[in-house]
Amino acid sequence: MTKIVLTGDRPTGPLHLGHYVGSLANRIELQNKCKQYVMIADVQALTDNFEHPEKLRQNVLQVALDYLAVGIDPNKSTIFIQSMIPQIAELTIFYMNLVTVARVGRNPTVKTEVKQKGLEDKLPVGFFVYPISQAADITVVKANIVPVGADQLPMIEQTNEIVRSFNRIYKVDLFPEVEAMIPKTGRLVGLDGQAKMSKSLNNAIFLSDSNDELAKKVRSMYTDPHHVHVNDPGRIEGNVVFTYLDIFDHNTEEVAELKEHYRRGGLGDSVLKKRLLDILEAFIDPIRTRREQLAKDPQHVMNIILKGTQETEKVAEQTMHDVKKAIHFDY
Amino acid sequence: MTKIVLTGDRPTGPLHLGHYVGSLANRIELQNKCKQYVMIADVQALTDNFEHPEKLRQNVLQVALDYLAVGIDPNKSTIFIQSMIPQIAELTIFYMNLVTVARVGRNPTVKTEVKQKGLEDKLPVGFFVYPISQAADITVVKANIVPVGADQLPMIEQTNEIVRSFNRIYKVDLFPEVEAMIPKTGRLVGLDGQAKMSKSLNNAIFLSDSNDELAKKVRSMYTDPHHVHVNDPGRIEGNVVFTYLDIFDHNTEEVAELKEHYRRGGLGDSVLKKRLLDILEAFIDPIRTRREQLAKDPQHVMNIILKGTQETEKVAEQTMHDVKKAIHFDY
Repeated sequence: MTKIVLTGDRPTGPLHLGHYVGSLANRIELQNKCKQYVMIADVQALTDNFEHPEKLRQNVLQVALDYLAVGIDPNKSTIFIQSMIPQIAELTIFYMNLVTVARVGRNPTVKTEVKQKGLEDKLPVGFFVYPISQAADITVVKANIVPVGADQLPMIEQTNEIVRSFNRIYKVDLFPEVEAMIPKTGRLVGLDGQAKMSKSLNNAIFLSDSNDELAKKVRSMYTDPHHVHVNDPGRIEGNVVFTYLDIFDHNTEEVAELKEHYRRGGLGDSVLKKRLLDILEAFIDPIRTRREQLAKDPQHVMNIILKGTQETEKVAEQTMHDVKKAIHFDY
Repeated sequence: MTKIVLTGDRPTGPLHLGHYVGSLANRIELQNKCKQYVMIADVQALTDNFEHPEKLRQNVLQVALDYLAVGIDPNKSTIFIQSMIPQIAELTIFYMNLVTVARVGRNPTVKTEVKQKGLEDKLPVGFFVYPISQAADITVVKANIVPVGADQLPMIEQTNEIVRSFNRIYKVDLFPEVEAMIPKTGRLVGLDGQAKMSKSLNNAIFLSDSNDELAKKVRSMYTDPHHVHVNDPGRIEGNVVFTYLDIFDHNTEEVAELKEHYRRGGLGDSVLKKRLLDILEAFIDPIRTRREQLAKDPQHVMNIILKGTQETEKVAEQTMHDVKKAIHFDY
């Protein structure tokens, strides 16, 4: 049976190379093997942006442009807007009965994010319950594969607990258990080498960056601070330029030689950065061109995701029909 | 401007005299003065009955029969089923961003009910967040009057906090603040005189009780335990028969005389109970007859509430349209 995948992004900003490496590349492959839903998670983004919804609205189009530009094909993947699927909200309400407040409080992902965002005392209920909403996102299309980072595994476990409770209590076999798919390439480090690439950390290369921005960012990349003179021996580990070459430079033999050379000294950062810049330009250039082309007709792009949303709603309606039947709420 | 009222019941059992005195009588009046919505709260009832949804399903029809039998007129009041209005779920999700976990935890009504039901450690999220869901119930039809018992006042305050937050954050004047309407006649005591009338306390007279059941229940009513012999002086205070006579016997002069007589002694409980039984029979008999008549065609009754539900959904759709516009989620 065809596997069903749910994946997606919060529309909080344009997508960057970290998104590409961590998930977009994977989706471009998965859309040929599975039935793939790609959700623009505006409702989830609202949980910690509820005072600035206009920002989310603007970024829905930006994210859609990024999707289409990198090669997510609307004929193969179904892109949809979360807030337009009311069944997700309905399912969340039903699932909230199956999870205790104490259980959500013990969710490690929630704990970490609450701490990171400094929300402790002013934690909105919407943010607190988002593992439950996520279970609704996943199950409303009956997904059985969800690509996630390792830090998100507790969310999948929470979903599976809900799936098992629902099937057991309502004596149905409605939802499949969900398998997490952890990407081979982990999180991409940011330009500063210190953390994951992220818009808010200001260390990201966006898929929509111009060649000038790209050049500036590659120049600023963290390498080996002790590699002061060209002839000094240099470190590969933690050197962001090499991390990126490992991912984007397909000439692995040459990269191996460059590493060797850098280690023993005599290879300058600027040479390496020039090489990486050329590769990244070649990578981003066609994406940016397609993106600019698509951006000329934003209504066309919106129509594509509205069509995907309609298709998703049909599936969600069927799921909700089955759910209400299971709960005896089929009047 | 016409006031909009939201009221309703959880479909957990047939309605009883306590419901009549505490709310149904009020609704029969209100439907002539206001636009009144009467919600059969199946989703809310599910929060603490999620393992027995079939019970709720069966009682939806029972509650509808009670409504129509007592004189809630579907041409004046709009009766609807909560689970069939997905906008309530959507609105709940948006409102959850505007309330902190700490704030819900401080809600006195939630605290009391959690304690009463012994839910502390195994408190389902659905039950915990129900003040937020209730705000969605109320505002989805833009109600500005909600008849509630005094113990439910914190729920109205919670709704008004949400209304104020929503209007302020999203710079709209979409929702009116809500006024609680506390019934003149407070809660009806149960047959045992110890607590409020309630199905689960097994001290209720149902609107669907037969005359035999009624007679048995009136005979069992708590009076004055020290009034052993007819000639003993008796107490009026806490004497359930007098409490009920005060409400249901419209001959107030005679009731005053009976009280006087009972106090000084010489008036037996059986005489009083016979009087009350006659009055309650006369009260319940036409209700039961209409109920039995309606019960012959359950589909007709369901059609009435499905029509009310359709009408409510039109209003809810408009509300959700305005809400999504305010949140910039109007794609």
